[in-house]
Amino acid sequence: MKYAFAQRTRNFESSAVRDILKVVGEGDIISFAGGLPDDDLFPLDAVEEAYKRVFEGGKHTMQYGLTEGYTPLREAVADRMAVRKQIRMDADNILLTTGSQQAIDLFSRIILNPGDVILTENPTYLAALQVFQSYEARVVPVESDEFGMLPEDLEEKMKSHLPKFVYIVPTFSNPVGKVWSLERRKHLLDLAKKYNVIIFEDDPYGEIQFDAAADYTPLAALDDGETVLYTSTFSKTVVPALRTGWVMGPHQIIRMMAQAKQAADLHSSSIDQQALYYLLRDFDLDSHITTLRAVYKERMEVMLGQLQRLNLPGLGYVVPQGGMFFWVALHESINTKELLPKAVKKGVAYVPGSPFYVCEPKHNTFRLNFTHAVPEKIEYGMNQLVSVLEEAYETVPKDKATV
Amino acid sequence: MKYAFAQRTRNFESSAVRDILKVVGEGDIISFAGGLPDDDLFPLDAVEEAYKRVFEGGKHTMQYGLTEGYTPLREAVADRMAVRKQIRMDADNILLTTGSQQAIDLFSRIILNPGDVILTENPTYLAALQVFQSYEARVVPVESDEFGMLPEDLEEKMKSHLPKFVYIVPTFSNPVGKVWSLERRKHLLDLAKKYNVIIFEDDPYGEIQFDAAADYTPLAALDDGETVLYTSTFSKTVVPALRTGWVMGPHQIIRMMAQAKQAADLHSSSIDQQALYYLLRDFDLDSHITTLRAVYKERMEVMLGQLQRLNLPGLGYVVPQGGMFFWVALHESINTKELLPKAVKKGVAYVPGSPFYVCEPKHNTFRLNFTHAVPEKIEYGMNQLVSVLEEAYETVPKDKATV
Repeated sequence: MKYAFAQRTRNFESSAVRDILKVVGEGDIISFAGGLPDDDLFPLDAVEEAYKRVFEGGKHTMQYGLTEGYTPLREAVADRMAVRKQIRMDADNILLTTGSQQAIDLFSRIILNPGDVILTENPTYLAALQVFQSYEARVVPVESDEFGMLPEDLEEKMKSHLPKFVYIVPTFSNPVGKVWSLERRKHLLDLAKKYNVIIFEDDPYGEIQFDAAADYTPLAALDDGETVLYTSTFSKTVVPALRTGWVMGPHQIIRMMAQAKQAADLHSSSIDQQALYYLLRDFDLDSHITTLRAVYKERMEVMLGQLQRLNLPGLGYVVPQGGMFFWVALHESINTKELLPKAVKKGVAYVPGSPFYVCEPKHNTFRLNFTHAVPEKIEYGMNQLVSVLEEAYETVPKDKATV
Repeated sequence: MKYAFAQRTRNFESSAVRDILKVVGEGDIISFAGGLPDDDLFPLDAVEEAYKRVFEGGKHTMQYGLTEGYTPLREAVADRMAVRKQIRMDADNILLTTGSQQAIDLFSRIILNPGDVILTENPTYLAALQVFQSYEARVVPVESDEFGMLPEDLEEKMKSHLPKFVYIVPTFSNPVGKVWSLERRKHLLDLAKKYNVIIFEDDPYGEIQFDAAADYTPLAALDDGETVLYTSTFSKTVVPALRTGWVMGPHQIIRMMAQAKQAADLHSSSIDQQALYYLLRDFDLDSHITTLRAVYKERMEVMLGQLQRLNLPGLGYVVPQGGMFFWVALHESINTKELLPKAVKKGVAYVPGSPFYVCEPKHNTFRLNFTHAVPEKIEYGMNQLVSVLEEAYETVPKDKATV
């Protein structure tokens, strides 16, 4: 039988990241490919305790729940966001989701008609691009530098494309690992208000900041509650298997997303949501996050040390102030996708950069995760990778290589 | 700020069922409205034990999982379906979902273009209609009787509308509570093959059958693996809070749905999926289902007894052979939506029938759930409802009422 799939499936692509994870997960390879936190840091005892509390609540805790999510957890998230992120919103403005990935999907579902325009950075989060493409939207990249989108290009594109929204990961971006300056954040918000454009602020990594004193104010905290939709997750700070994220913003949008969620899956696991509520109540998540920051910062520095050993023409990267990734550019003659099998053969994996691009992919880029492996493994894996890179550079034309 | 929502949101409606649940959940009302199993029957100890097994597996059990779902659970579902339902498929043909609601949504996403036609019964499952509407599909009802869709009308509509798929709940249907005959099942399958149409078989209630000896062969068991997509859930047999369902069928379709799920939410809670795997391994779910069948059958009979007391013109209902619902028709001059506030005032709630209709709703219908309340409460609630109905019939014109 032949199946006539919907038009939107023409844009489906299995995520390169996840396909690689599948292969790499089976072997004895040091993987810098995925965006995985380190299992060994998971607060397993606290999670187990939290589930015990749920079961102590009796049988009625196992019944169907509300689409919006478990109310006490929504309240706890509202409190937490006020204290940690200066985002002041009621529980009513929060929808609990199956990871923040679902927040991206549900928002796209309620806002995008085929052909609608979204402005993003380039490169940007791969799986967000996949969602936008599945709704047949048109993604238009805005020029940006290390501080965020360039004001002139941004305004020009808001005027000419009338976008439905701007999608950004302003704090420790995926894949680039950079942080937007406060000035650029304010500027984007001003323009969004001027041109009546929603900002979708994706902040999965915001808690993993290396300098505790630094202030990376979310755009949602600068907003008056009308323009910014903010999403985050407990996947990086507690455990990913819980699949619990949230989205907060204007009530009218949250309400519409809840209606979309009702059709999509009725509600997310309420056992997990209840457990997370008890975890937030009984476990010192802030101290745990302080530990994560210190451990991940050390790993970042180990990886940085290895990158600094390289003296290769065209090599470029941002030193991360938080998050989980290095984004590396090589000499433009090198194709990192073609190089990957060689790296895997040497026992190390990364993600080639091209799928993160909206258009005109730079094939000489790749992403490295520094949170999953312990320092010794990072050191060994980077050693292997360095030798792969150095070998690859042998093919770089001498005259160009010495530029 | 004004928000320009997507076209598809014009078709959004908050589910009447869930809105009523919200109000009813707060008061001291006996609710026959929702589709809830009884909390008191939940195998809480077994569920708790199963979660313990997950945590014994150590920290790596808390990491990100595969979009397709936890492999051992997919294998366990494949085995279980072969034994219990004679559906023989590999784990590769199974996608785990956040309830079977998500299976309906993901399938719609990969198959429906705006304007595409779906054939259904009329009335049919409300939240499936909401999904189809959100994808801007055109739902065409097929005439049916107590045995299923009428062959002539079905073939005529397959020919004239070229539908993308036929959506059915053939075993203890929601809301009508009827069972398709084997002949009609086979006939639909033959036509589907003849006209190259997929059958989406929604079977959330199949395990709740009152006559253990009866054989309600799923269409998926009659198929050669090319035409039928089958979905079910553990929400009615284990606990709803787990939100774990599955969909099984042609590998090409399952694969495409997995790609859609990757964008939609990456994967469902893998803690819950792992727990369910241990529960299936260590707990005698089949015995538990036997208990559920006996308890729910008794409750159905209590409700039936009360309905049989009524001697009202135009009254009609099917006696359920399983599942969770009675579907009741009254005299055509009575509007059950308008009657609902009076019922709630008397301490009892039901779901008005009109939202279950594709078109031309019959306002004189309503659905009663018999699984959630204990027999004494069913008796009391039905007593109240009977008095509400008898009062309503006082307005029925005498000449018509005596017909």
